[in-house]
Amino acid sequence: MNSEIKKLLEGVQNGSISVEDALLKIKKEPFEDLGYAKVDFHRKARQGAAEVIYGAGKSAEQICGIVKSLQGSGQNTILITRLDEEKANALKTEISLDYRKDARIGITGPLPSPDGIGKILVATGGTSDIPVAEEAALTAEALGNEVIRLYDVGVAGLHRLLSHLDEVMSASVIIAVAGMEGALASVIGGLADCPVIAVPTSVGYGASFEGLSALLSMLNSCASGVSVVNIDNGFGAGYQASLINHMEAK
Amino acid sequence: MNSEIKKLLEGVQNGSISVEDALLKIKKEPFEDLGYAKVDFHRKARQGAAEVIYGAGKSAEQICGIVKSLQGSGQNTILITRLDEEKANALKTEISLDYRKDARIGITGPLPSPDGIGKILVATGGTSDIPVAEEAALTAEALGNEVIRLYDVGVAGLHRLLSHLDEVMSASVIIAVAGMEGALASVIGGLADCPVIAVPTSVGYGASFEGLSALLSMLNSCASGVSVVNIDNGFGAGYQASLINHMEAK
Amino acid sequence: MNSEIKKLLEGVQNGSISVEDALLKIKKEPFEDLGYAKVDFHRKARQGAAEVIYGAGKSAEQICGIVKSLQGSGQNTILITRLDEEKANALKTEISLDYRKDARIGITGPLPSPDGIGKILVATGGTSDIPVAEEAALTAEALGNEVIRLYDVGVAGLHRLLSHLDEVMSASVIIAVAGMEGALASVIGGLADCPVIAVPTSVGYGASFEGLSALLSMLNSCASGVSVVNIDNGFGAGYQASLINHMEAK
Amino acid sequence: MNSEIKKLLEGVQNGSISVEDALLKIKKEPFEDLGYAKVDFHRKARQGAAEVIYGAGKSAEQICGIVKSLQGSGQNTILITRLDEEKANALKTEISLDYRKDARIGITGPLPSPDGIGKILVATGGTSDIPVAEEAALTAEALGNEVIRLYDVGVAGLHRLLSHLDEVMSASVIIAVAGMEGALASVIGGLADCPVIAVPTSVGYGASFEGLSALLSMLNSCASGVSVVNIDNGFGAGYQASLINHMEAK
Amino acid sequence: MNSEIKKLLEGVQNGSISVEDALLKIKKEPFEDLGYAKVDFHRKARQGAAEVIYGAGKSAEQICGIVKSLQGSGQNTILITRLDEEKANALKTEISLDYRKDARIGITGPLPSPDGIGKILVATGGTSDIPVAEEAALTAEALGNEVIRLYDVGVAGLHRLLSHLDEVMSASVIIAVAGMEGALASVIGGLADCPVIAVPTSVGYGASFEGLSALLSMLNSCASGVSVVNIDNGFGAGYQASLINHMEAK
Amino acid sequence: MNSEIKKLLEGVQNGSISVEDALLKIKKEPFEDLGYAKVDFHRKARQGAAEVIYGAGKSAEQICGIVKSLQGSGQNTILITRLDEEKANALKTEISLDYRKDARIGITGPLPSPDGIGKILVATGGTSDIPVAEEAALTAEALGNEVIRLYDVGVAGLHRLLSHLDEVMSASVIIAVAGMEGALASVIGGLADCPVIAVPTSVGYGASFEGLSALLSMLNSCASGVSVVNIDNGFGAGYQASLINHMEAK
Amino acid sequence: MNSEIKKLLEGVQNGSISVEDALLKIKKEPFEDLGYAKVDFHRKARQGAAEVIYGAGKSAEQICGIVKSLQGSGQNTILITRLDEEKANALKTEISLDYRKDARIGITGPLPSPDGIGKILVATGGTSDIPVAEEAALTAEALGNEVIRLYDVGVAGLHRLLSHLDEVMSASVIIAVAGMEGALASVIGGLADCPVIAVPTSVGYGASFEGLSALLSMLNSCASGVSVVNIDNGFGAGYQASLINHMEAK
Amino acid sequence: MNSEIKKLLEGVQNGSISVEDALLKIKKEPFEDLGYAKVDFHRKARQGAAEVIYGAGKSAEQICGIVKSLQGSGQNTILITRLDEEKANALKTEISLDYRKDARIGITGPLPSPDGIGKILVATGGTSDIPVAEEAALTAEALGNEVIRLYDVGVAGLHRLLSHLDEVMSASVIIAVAGMEGALASVIGGLADCPVIAVPTSVGYGASFEGLSALLSMLNSCASGVSVVNIDNGFGAGYQASLINHMEAK
Repeated sequence: MNSEIKKLLEGVQNGSISVEDALLKIKKEPFEDLGYAKVDFHRKARQGAAEVIYGAGKSAEQICGIVKSLQGSGQNTILITRLDEEKANALKTEISLDYRKDARIGITGPLPSPDGIGKILVATGGTSDIPVAEEAALTAEALGNEVIRLYDVGVAGLHRLLSHLDEVMSASVIIAVAGMEGALASVIGGLADCPVIAVPTSVGYGASFEGLSALLSMLNSCASGVSVVNIDNGFGAGYQASLINHMEAK
Repeated sequence: MNSEIKKLLEGVQNGSISVEDALLKIKKEPFEDLGYAKVDFHRKARQGAAEVIYGAGKSAEQICGIVKSLQGSGQNTILITRLDEEKANALKTEISLDYRKDARIGITGPLPSPDGIGKILVATGGTSDIPVAEEAALTAEALGNEVIRLYDVGVAGLHRLLSHLDEVMSASVIIAVAGMEGALASVIGGLADCPVIAVPTSVGYGASFEGLSALLSMLNSCASGVSVVNIDNGFGAGYQASLINHMEAK
Repeated sequence: MNSEIKKLLEGVQNGSISVEDALLKIKKEPFEDLGYAKVDFHRKARQGAAEVIYGAGKSAEQICGIVKSLQGSGQNTILITRLDEEKANALKTEISLDYRKDARIGITGPLPSPDGIGKILVATGGTSDIPVAEEAALTAEALGNEVIRLYDVGVAGLHRLLSHLDEVMSASVIIAVAGMEGALASVIGGLADCPVIAVPTSVGYGASFEGLSALLSMLNSCASGVSVVNIDNGFGAGYQASLINHMEAK
Repeated sequence: MNSEIKKLLEGVQNGSISVEDALLKIKKEPFEDLGYAKVDFHRKARQGAAEVIYGAGKSAEQICGIVKSLQGSGQNTILITRLDEEKANALKTEISLDYRKDARIGITGPLPSPDGIGKILVATGGTSDIPVAEEAALTAEALGNEVIRLYDVGVAGLHRLLSHLDEVMSASVIIAVAGMEGALASVIGGLADCPVIAVPTSVGYGASFEGLSALLSMLNSCASGVSVVNIDNGFGAGYQASLINHMEAK
Repeated sequence: MNSEIKKLLEGVQNGSISVEDALLKIKKEPFEDLGYAKVDFHRKARQGAAEVIYGAGKSAEQICGIVKSLQGSGQNTILITRLDEEKANALKTEISLDYRKDARIGITGPLPSPDGIGKILVATGGTSDIPVAEEAALTAEALGNEVIRLYDVGVAGLHRLLSHLDEVMSASVIIAVAGMEGALASVIGGLADCPVIAVPTSVGYGASFEGLSALLSMLNSCASGVSVVNIDNGFGAGYQASLINHMEAK
Repeated sequence: MNSEIKKLLEGVQNGSISVEDALLKIKKEPFEDLGYAKVDFHRKARQGAAEVIYGAGKSAEQICGIVKSLQGSGQNTILITRLDEEKANALKTEISLDYRKDARIGITGPLPSPDGIGKILVATGGTSDIPVAEEAALTAEALGNEVIRLYDVGVAGLHRLLSHLDEVMSASVIIAVAGMEGALASVIGGLADCPVIAVPTSVGYGASFEGLSALLSMLNSCASGVSVVNIDNGFGAGYQASLINHMEAK
Repeated sequence: MNSEIKKLLEGVQNGSISVEDALLKIKKEPFEDLGYAKVDFHRKARQGAAEVIYGAGKSAEQICGIVKSLQGSGQNTILITRLDEEKANALKTEISLDYRKDARIGITGPLPSPDGIGKILVATGGTSDIPVAEEAALTAEALGNEVIRLYDVGVAGLHRLLSHLDEVMSASVIIAVAGMEGALASVIGGLADCPVIAVPTSVGYGASFEGLSALLSMLNSCASGVSVVNIDNGFGAGYQASLINHMEAK
Repeated sequence: MNSEIKKLLEGVQNGSISVEDALLKIKKEPFEDLGYAKVDFHRKARQGAAEVIYGAGKSAEQICGIVKSLQGSGQNTILITRLDEEKANALKTEISLDYRKDARIGITGPLPSPDGIGKILVATGGTSDIPVAEEAALTAEALGNEVIRLYDVGVAGLHRLLSHLDEVMSASVIIAVAGMEGALASVIGGLADCPVIAVPTSVGYGASFEGLSALLSMLNSCASGVSVVNIDNGFGAGYQASLINHMEAK
């Protein structure tokens, strides 16, 4: 920001830009041009990392247009989340797309090489939680992280989780994905000493109330180091896990 | 029931009781005297077991009257639940009372010898759950059960629970008492092969919503063999556990 | 557990197994092989009892695979819950299946002979509650229990329930299944002196809020000896009832 | 209404009142004077019936003023609901008041002789529901009804209710007052063939959620002929029961 | 009840019935035969009144069977509520049926002549509330009441309601049907001096939360004499209104 | 009102109307004819402004009839809200209709020239909120307002909103439409000094609970000058904004 | 904003300020000094209007400091909302304060002369809503509006409201304050043709759920032109009403 | 874990420990001694970092005991959260304590030198959120982090936040603390490119529903990189922020 306004002021000082033009420039674009804020919602965090497009509520045509525009500007790896199969098939007629039906995610271009501090572990309570977990895992991979998957390790069969203690203990960030009672986050939070991001899922019936039960459980976790994202929000968990796994001094 | 009405009918048959008197008797006390239903809410389940009085909403005078009436009919061991300290002190001026402040329970007379099938394990997630757990434990003891207490073994410190696996595996019934995320019930339900009665507590703050979070968690437990009672209802859990622990062929 | 680790340690002591191999064995399978926990979620509780598979969220292929694998290991009686008709038909092309459409349950092999302490009574408030009740009843039967069905005895027509007092009084465990206001659990809880497991159902409309009304009613039951499982969770009630009906000293 | 406007119009016709004055009169008091609507919220339903004042949120001075004004206009029997003891004592220094602490009701003057079609039965599930029941009962009595009280007949001890079947069957209107699971309304609704007004109370704890559980139960009653008023609204139930008990052709 | 048991006892006394048979009779049918309770949920209240069948959750075959059975026992007028069009068409191939699509109600036989105390007014806030209102109106008519319909008189256009004050003031019972904010019940409750039964409907969107908004409004009505039934429960309102409109001394 | 009643009274005075006829007239139409209230729900606020029809729950035939009736009375510009495509197509066979699919709105006739105090700004948080926003915008335009659209300026990309500060600062009324967390209303409320009407939308998933999250956010806005309408109620916001934008001394 | 930055740029142009100093000035105070946003939350809207301080959560010392600072800068009329009596008394020892206990508001200095377009009507359903209404009314008066108070005109006694139709019809903005069922907003919204701001209050008990019932009612109002603020938020309603009542072309 | 069991096995191999003793050791302490899990809930994360004690629900005596025990084992810096003033005063008579009343935190010993990757920014929406923010900030400081406080920068006065963009952009982790509508998290999440932990607070009234509004807002944040902890859980946010700020390769 400094340099740009400074240039403007120097222009005023040396007469190459009039006061009126400078005023207009500052007033008209107080933020966009001055770098106050992030230019793009899903902006590329680092070289090589993917761009992510939220597919829900966008038509195949709109998505296609965004993809081509990104590719035109040199971005090859693109992740499209919440992409249903029909739209994916429509996209495939226009662009080269690797579609992962379970995760409702489409990918163009190669996934980047992992460059994070450590590994991100994605664990689920049951097999029904896997779609949300895959959204988290693929998001993290597309943003340059090595991901370990540990699925169906719910607390009703504790031995399954405990037989993978090494993975749990060696992860840098853990994403705990669970529906129903959501106890997985607390158990993992108690075992691990790294940040745990809990993702409640809408898996369950009756008093699970579409994920409310798991959400409340996770928010009330008695384990330290656990935070929570929205129900079924695999992308959000993968994105924040990647931020954490790429922490560095500023 | 059979015998009593039969006797009545035989009386009519043999003329020792008039039709009108029999009619009156049947009409006036169709249930109480005929054994259709439980005579008392907290009736003595077996010889030696205690009578239980729900103390909330009753004055010290009322409680005192009930206690004396029960004692008069030969019932020595009496448990008074939800008894606050002030009323307990008032009662002590009239009757001999052992008051357990934590559990808000007063006891008169000796606890019965355990005569159940096995042991009842009462486990809590944290120390704040202990009052509810003690209500459950003392109720079970007063009804003739051996009780093992395993407090503060919440899932955030799994090793504490796992170091007591032997107690968990050898219990006949388990009462799992927990607030906040209530995960204890699921973890224990997954480890044990006996009935587990889960008691959500109102311990917690914020999104625990006075026990709602724990309640929903426990209802959604992915472990088989878990059922749930009302928030903070230690008495209910202890009572049902005792019923289970005294199962026998009819 | 003792014997297995003991053997391992003795092997180390007598040199028949190296320290490294023993270490690997302990580390790799700390729970599965050591008997800490239940090996399977729906594990066979006793000889002859059925294995139960939760069918929801599994494809016909997956279910078929599990069934064949279980049959291969000698398990003939298998119950598949939450199985819709389409999957059932697909399964029938591969395996011999008795499909109960109402209960959404498929059964392979013969049901075991009852070997419980007494009988399990399954009662419903209305006819719409029957599918959930059948899930409970068949689960209990598949786990080796004699089941008495008492359907459509809701409290609005009390005489229907009261005309079956004998069954109510002679049951060892009662499963009370009801939607709408869920009062059946309290009334039965007041009449019976055995454990009552209440199953709220999503039957109703408007302020039943998908079963919430019945759930809250049952949790607040003023009758002792009542505990509750999740809305529509017939399996859970049948499973716990079976555990209770097979209580024995350890 | 007819007569008053008619008189006005006749006055205009015969010149005793000017058009302007008639216009002003109609405009200024279109409702109050024309009898369109009920003049008073708690207006006297019939000769001899009491006036009812809602005491909550009014100061002792305000209540006293209203009472004296009513007495001045010839109304002797006055019921003051939701009146706490402190205000009652303040009132007693000014007016003659019969204060019923349990029901939080104060009464001045004699209760009217019952002149309804039949009897109103007020039943409660437990003893803690009695204050709300008394508010209903006294309201009904003050409005000219014979009231039968049947307290502590909750469904957990069905024999207590069933031993009073005669009262239930012979009532003209029944007010069923219950907290916790609120099942009393359904059971009574199933036994009786008269209108049943259900009053949920805030009695209970945990998942009773301040009366929500009883409220939902009562709204979902599977018995016909049951309607519901607000939680703890004894007055509303008593008032409507009195309306029903005084039905007559118009 | 008296006479029947009396006869039984006399039979025992005079030897015409054995003690065992009398015992069996009393035990087997303590309620059904003794007149304790209503024999049928939808039993005929008076001569000529219709029988009502709740059609939801019953197959066309089941409904057809019940109808024929009722007709066989001399009941000609039968109302079938919650009957969808498909089932109605299936029924029409077997029985003569007048199907009212809006109200989802089928009728066989003639409606009875009104024999109530006065008229029942059914009012709705909007046109979308009419199906629920028709369920109430037809139920009341089938039970022998004269019904006045006053539709689309919501409080946002107060003049529409006020121009029908005469009907409001002359009704014996009023059923107020409204969704959204449900204010109709309070306004009518303030105008009328007869019992008002409020029926919240699920009409609306957003924060109407499927009828919850109207339900809460109606429960909190500041007008006296208003009680409430379940959301969309037109039948319940019509049934209770008929009970009230047929009040008579017992 | 004055003039009409005055005329009536004068008629009585001069004998041209009898007392009885005048009485009947006043009684029969106390409101409709006397101008007490708004004659039509969506009545034309000013010359040239459109009539608005709420299309949901009305058949194409019904809508067509209303449109033709309005056109017959000289109203050319008519807006039909909540109109689905199928009904729109049916209408097009009868009347000339401009259908805006996104906004689910059909328009007949020309939009009026803006005659408000200033401009109405309609802003949305995301692109998924546009349908609701268009309902608001078209409603406002049809009622004679100049509308500025500012879509997809959610707070996660603050620069997008801030780069349009001029529009925000110069608006007379702002309609802030947002789902998910609904923060847009607070941010705009903090920037602008004009009335802000917030419209929560049901856009989102999981813990957005169908718009509840946005609704609560907006109600709790810490910015002054913000009020809220129902979830997805674009019409209501547009209508009130138009009222505000046409404020004038009475 | 323009002038200030323009001056800065001219200073740079003519050399009276260095580029670095200008840069620092712009960067350090991008908003506060540049007029982008409202400088103060409760800033003075127009000459003479009062400043408003939110008193809750501030100590008497803090409030006193703010008041003196405002007075020092020439602001004499200051409104302090949510001010309890104890703090008011503390303030009175330091500053001259007119304390309105009912409204929990303190005022210093004279109220400004009204300068709005028309009058603001503040109506309440009952007398218990008056404190919230007074907060609204005093806020509006302090911001320069003429306020008409119309209290206790709830819909249960419609004649009270209708006898004040003239005030309702002649108001420029209406604030409708009601608890319980909140129907007042709909009724007034249907009668008036000006913007209506609805304020739900927490008045009520039971199913009013601390104002939730009134809130939902008001959001679902079937009358056009109604928007809603937070429960008990009299200030917010008064503030927005004043904005609306001071609308003018920009 | 490896080394410890390996040593044990080697001891068995070389005869220095018997099979029985090894067995006992493994069985008795399967977790505690084997390093499977975190030994303490609030265990010291790194050298110099503080131990944290949760003070709520513990007596002053209990806290004192824990503090002395920790001090005895060489831990000097100890943080006690949720410590009310009374207990703090009691503690001061026994140990040297720095009590921060606002944050309800007591500290013994010196705070450690910051050794994290970067700075943690703690921002609040209002002044009432400061106690929760201070709990977060002090927790983070006690765990070895440099903390920047940015209080009262709520979105209603956006300029206050934007004038501190430098701090926002340069933080490594941000903790956003806000009640009411909780919009702060989304706005900061949109501006910053580091992980944001959102803490909803119970600040507000009415429809804030004790923090529910802020909680839902934050969960639905449309900004990436935001996760949420329980309402008022400053400690949890500070703890996780510290974990993130100390990320390093394992």
